[in-house]
Amino acid sequence: MTTDLPSTIRLNPQDNVIIALKDLVAGAVIPGLEAALLETVPRGHKIACRPIVAGERVIRYGQTIGLASRAIAPGEHVHVHNLSMGGHAEAQEFSTEIRALPAPAENRHFMGYHRADGKVGTRNYLGILTSVNCSGSVARFIAEAVEKQGWLDEFENVDGVVPIVHGTGCGMSGRDEGYETLFRTLQGYARNPNFAGILLLGLGCEVMQVPDLVGRGRMRADGNIRYMTIQQTGGTRRTIERGVEQLKEMAAVANQAVRAPAGLEHLVIGMQCGGSDGYSGITANPALGVASDLMVAHGGTTILSETSEIYGAEHLLTRRAVTPEVGAKIVERIRWWEDYTARNGGEMDNNPSPGNKKGGLTTILEKSLGAVAKGGSAPLTQVYKFAEPVTERGFVFMDSPGYDPCSVTGQIASGANLIVFTTGRGSVSGYKPTPCIKLATNSEMYARMSDDMDINCGDIVTEGVSLEAKGREIFELFLRVASGEKTKSEELGFGGAEFVPWQMGAVM
Amino acid sequence: MTTDLPSTIRLNPQDNVIIALKDLVAGAVIPGLEAALLETVPRGHKIACRPIVAGERVIRYGQTIGLASRAIAPGEHVHVHNLSMGGHAEAQEFSTEIRALPAPAENRHFMGYHRADGKVGTRNYLGILTSVNCSGSVARFIAEAVEKQGWLDEFENVDGVVPIVHGTGCGMSGRDEGYETLFRTLQGYARNPNFAGILLLGLGCEVMQVPDLVGRGRMRADGNIRYMTIQQTGGTRRTIERGVEQLKEMAAVANQAVRAPAGLEHLVIGMQCGGSDGYSGITANPALGVASDLMVAHGGTTILSETSEIYGAEHLLTRRAVTPEVGAKIVERIRWWEDYTARNGGEMDNNPSPGNKKGGLTTILEKSLGAVAKGGSAPLTQVYKFAEPVTERGFVFMDSPGYDPCSVTGQIASGANLIVFTTGRGSVSGYKPTPCIKLATNSEMYARMSDDMDINCGDIVTEGVSLEAKGREIFELFLRVASGEKTKSEELGFGGAEFVPWQMGAVM
Ligand SMILES: [Ca+2]
Ligand SMILES: [Ca+2]
Ligand SMILES: [Ca+2]
Ligand SMILES: [Ca+2]
Ligand SMILES: [Ca+2]
Repeated sequence: MTTDLPSTIRLNPQDNVIIALKDLVAGAVIPGLEAALLETVPRGHKIACRPIVAGERVIRYGQTIGLASRAIAPGEHVHVHNLSMGGHAEAQEFSTEIRALPAPAENRHFMGYHRADGKVGTRNYLGILTSVNCSGSVARFIAEAVEKQGWLDEFENVDGVVPIVHGTGCGMSGRDEGYETLFRTLQGYARNPNFAGILLLGLGCEVMQVPDLVGRGRMRADGNIRYMTIQQTGGTRRTIERGVEQLKEMAAVANQAVRAPAGLEHLVIGMQCGGSDGYSGITANPALGVASDLMVAHGGTTILSETSEIYGAEHLLTRRAVTPEVGAKIVERIRWWEDYTARNGGEMDNNPSPGNKKGGLTTILEKSLGAVAKGGSAPLTQVYKFAEPVTERGFVFMDSPGYDPCSVTGQIASGANLIVFTTGRGSVSGYKPTPCIKLATNSEMYARMSDDMDINCGDIVTEGVSLEAKGREIFELFLRVASGEKTKSEELGFGGAEFVPWQMGAVM
Repeated sequence: MTTDLPSTIRLNPQDNVIIALKDLVAGAVIPGLEAALLETVPRGHKIACRPIVAGERVIRYGQTIGLASRAIAPGEHVHVHNLSMGGHAEAQEFSTEIRALPAPAENRHFMGYHRADGKVGTRNYLGILTSVNCSGSVARFIAEAVEKQGWLDEFENVDGVVPIVHGTGCGMSGRDEGYETLFRTLQGYARNPNFAGILLLGLGCEVMQVPDLVGRGRMRADGNIRYMTIQQTGGTRRTIERGVEQLKEMAAVANQAVRAPAGLEHLVIGMQCGGSDGYSGITANPALGVASDLMVAHGGTTILSETSEIYGAEHLLTRRAVTPEVGAKIVERIRWWEDYTARNGGEMDNNPSPGNKKGGLTTILEKSLGAVAKGGSAPLTQVYKFAEPVTERGFVFMDSPGYDPCSVTGQIASGANLIVFTTGRGSVSGYKPTPCIKLATNSEMYARMSDDMDINCGDIVTEGVSLEAKGREIFELFLRVASGEKTKSEELGFGGAEFVPWQMGAVM
């Protein structure tokens, strides 16, 4: 450790608080802070960096986390004794904090696979999509047979065959919200641009019927889709043989796709955090926020999700909503979640815990901002249900649980062709057909799990790298990965177990 | 088709109705029926084979399906016009129909793996059990690495390494019924005697914590268990290396197990039906009932499940319960199911549908008997929750949804070392570590899917094979498969996708 490392971080130029990066004692001299530290402040806690009058907004991440309950002098510790939610911070406001992003200095592009429906893939996989758990093993057998036979190597533009296997699709109602959610999820995967073709495989007698999924229209605009059931085909061996033949035909079509320049309006990036730690909210998440804003400024789309982590702090998003109607959708989802957890015998509670408070988080707004910080400061252009197709550009929200594999599954079904995932404890996972970039929140975990982590954001603390610089580094990796550079989790072969549809309703 | 095939079947010697195996016209002469057929009777419908007085019980499968609503003559069609539930059939009775099974003529045994806790395995696998979806891919990588390295071939008594991967374990409450159910399921797999050893693998930050699963005692009596988390081990590559080393040590121990004679009291057979058809209730299910009774008479255990399929006909089981306390547990589960489906916005309804009635099913008792027939006529010795360890011998009930992979998962967690599965439409599936015997209900499907089906029960109709003979054939296959003979689904390699814990509660 060198002594010129920063002892505090300011997360946004507009902030009137800074965050201690180590335990600081009264009287310490903080560069950039005019006064000496007035009292002892533990690591992770806030220090006023400007005079704040009683009733003034306290700003972190450039956003309001509460109101000063009395006057606060620079160098003072800011926490529960002088900061509270107040009336203003709790008020439900719509579209009151819309801030345009600066126009980008240059045009950027990536190299992707242009699809018949106008979307662009970052990968070129063939998928074997299963309607029900009961066709899962056979889907894997087909993929194994293809691999064993070796002919896929001749189709050098095809990234591989991906079985999409799950635990549901039957033993469920055929006409409730759970069914509709699974239906959207499966259709969304079939249409994700990272697939060049889909073999849809059912057993035959399941609730989630293959003909219903295929529907009357074309399930894929390119027509590169086949479907069958094991029962109609005559059992496992015949289904494997026929599936391999069909994939051979589909691979010939898929192999004609080549990467070509595509504007960033064709990138749809699902943002996720999992295994958060005390650094998530000061390193990886705000750095990703910078990258998200850059992507949005360039015309791209970023998806924030994990509704349970913004509960009670939905004002953070309603204020950024481009219209009150968009903001109202957030509120509608929050009400839905209250009903969903109540009918399952639980309740929503996102308030700072005693442990959160000890770590320096004062209000529910501040806690939730740690997660919302991934979404930068761009206006919120639309709100989607889980697995609903994302059609608006810019910064959007898709409703989902916080549970990583389930949330990412919804984002990919919504059309995400790239995933970025911040983690403090070290999550290892991949989500075929979509590449996943891992951002480590701290240098210790990065050093220990460097085979799994794509970027270390811990150096914001350990080496004083700026959030702006880290955000640009993440943004540049977005473009390289979108253009074909493999992520760590792709190199390791992840993605065969992480398809986890949101299962709602009774298992019957 | 030869003309000497039976045109009707009597499912039990005590029955006062027989079932038409084809459409029969008035005046037809039915062997064994004294009167000529009095009216036209469609295939699948009932014909009185003895005079039945008004108010008398109508008996099918040796069990009451309702009361005659008026006098019925031999040769008359029995259906909604002369058969109803009546007061008696609906009455909740406990332990009123306990019938001892005849003692077996000979002692039988199988060749199994005797474990340290006194249980006996029918297979000798090593398992990689995952606490959470987030360790699923790495569990598979470890199994793939073992296979690639080839050293497992030296341990010829070991059947293989089985990754047990699922979609849950986090994004859930840590203290509700859903958590407890998953906890029991994972512990049950760790202790199933078909595993010679368990490597328990977590990510680290999940709700379902590895240390909680391991607990304070020994998770396995033989001590052949290792556990680790990916985060503590330092990422994917190191976890694979370490996991392979640990499995090598465990394989040396597992390889010392050899098959030795075991009494049938060590067989625990999970019974399942999936993709039922009009033949299920007259061929495979009652034939399995004969085999179940044989197994129970020999001291073995058979598990009936699929609570949603006995709903409204729970009297069938309460009357066979060895004590009123055991019967009351069935009723308690039924009440639980009513609450479970109601809070999920659905309802229980097992009444015969118009299609059922057209097919010849008159009352809810009769419809449910089609499923319950798998359990023969033995007394019901105990009732268990999903995945609860089965400790009583004889015919028992374990609560579960009807959904095949989920129900079987519970049975294996409860200790099943053999699964038998009747299917009409043709289900293809396997459930490592436990072999699964498939019984086809009809000859047409058997011919079409013979690679997947172990026994054809359709010949009861197409060749006049007796239920008794078919039951003995099934029973003999139980012993051969328990002793090591591979089932069709084992030969095909099934069992890698069908671990489906019962997910209850909100995904958070
Ligand atoms: Ca290739
Ligand atoms: Ca999280
Ligand atoms: Ca998450
Ligand atoms: Ca072997
Ligand atoms: Ca079933």
